[in-house]
Amino acid sequence: MKLTPALASLIDALRALPGVGPKSAQRMAFHLLHDGRSGARGLSESLTLALQAVRHCARCRMFTESELCATCCAPQRDASLLCVVESPADVLAIEQSGGYRGRYFVLLGHLSPLDGVGPEQLGAQQLEALLGEGQVVEMIVATNSTVEGEATAHFLGELARAHGVRATRIAHGVPMGGELEYIDSGTLVHAMAGRQSLG
Amino acid sequence: MKLTPALASLIDALRALPGVGPKSAQRMAFHLLHDGRSGARGLSESLTLALQAVRHCARCRMFTESELCATCCAPQRDASLLCVVESPADVLAIEQSGGYRGRYFVLLGHLSPLDGVGPEQLGAQQLEALLGEGQVVEMIVATNSTVEGEATAHFLGELARAHGVRATRIAHGVPMGGELEYIDSGTLVHAMAGRQSLG
Repeated sequence: MKLTPALASLIDALRALPGVGPKSAQRMAFHLLHDGRSGARGLSESLTLALQAVRHCARCRMFTESELCATCCAPQRDASLLCVVESPADVLAIEQSGGYRGRYFVLLGHLSPLDGVGPEQLGAQQLEALLGEGQVVEMIVATNSTVEGEATAHFLGELARAHGVRATRIAHGVPMGGELEYIDSGTLVHAMAGRQSLG
Repeated sequence: MKLTPALASLIDALRALPGVGPKSAQRMAFHLLHDGRSGARGLSESLTLALQAVRHCARCRMFTESELCATCCAPQRDASLLCVVESPADVLAIEQSGGYRGRYFVLLGHLSPLDGVGPEQLGAQQLEALLGEGQVVEMIVATNSTVEGEATAHFLGELARAHGVRATRIAHGVPMGGELEYIDSGTLVHAMAGRQSLG
């Protein structure tokens, strides 16, 4: 039995979502067309609207609906601190932690020469322009603790040095509530090397 | 930090997809708006198109883009066999197995009084009209082997009897390639009870 063309193309289109394979896409399509018709209509409208309205902040590359995002516009934000992250989701995670009052720069990726992602794709020029303004005193590099994230961190460190800005890296170590017994040795090495004096 | 309205509404709309929670919805939205803009446009268009074009077959309730689905229209299909399943995905699974040449009836659910799903929601009237035509000789009940599926099977058996149609239930037993050692006892009881003479 062949699926009807509209159904086949919907299943195909749903595979554009990350983490959705052929079986999930079929299940989603069947759900949307039977029980979930109002949800499907809402999704189609929200997608069209978001594609029109949402773009990247001209300053920090976070998602925004204006020229600049809310964080870049907020005067109470500390402009001397710039936290560089890989993705918009990282910004949200740091914001939810509530412990940071500076500004951000979103790379929208990490260095990955094999995928054709170099400094240009990560907005290095934009970042250099930001550092060149002279407001930023410390650049906190919060890329992921993966091979690519570390390579990107190294590159960012060089870039900050070239502009005379102090670059720091977020601490790697034992997560809160973590039990030493179950922590991998790479993390323990970092936790030992990054030890701080008590009290 | 607040998400922009269009982004928040897209994340909310993505939760209409089955199996998508807040974190996955956020990940999907960020992906669609950054790397996947062309995929997002395609998805929005496919959704709109499918919502307009796809409906249920007037005879068997399978998805179709015409009045009747391809299976109901095909003259080479054996009209004396009617296989009753819970969902369109079940029809696809049986078709892929390639061992069935009859027609189908899709219940689009199973009996579940607590959720307000009774015979009416399962298209019992339509099914009775089909059986009343006199073409169907055997009705194969292929609902799932769950509590609700078994209750639905029981109900369908009664319905077939009332129309003088022979009702059969698909076999339950050890799946092909399954090792007895690892099969649950409920399945083994069914496999024993349903044993057939060799050769």
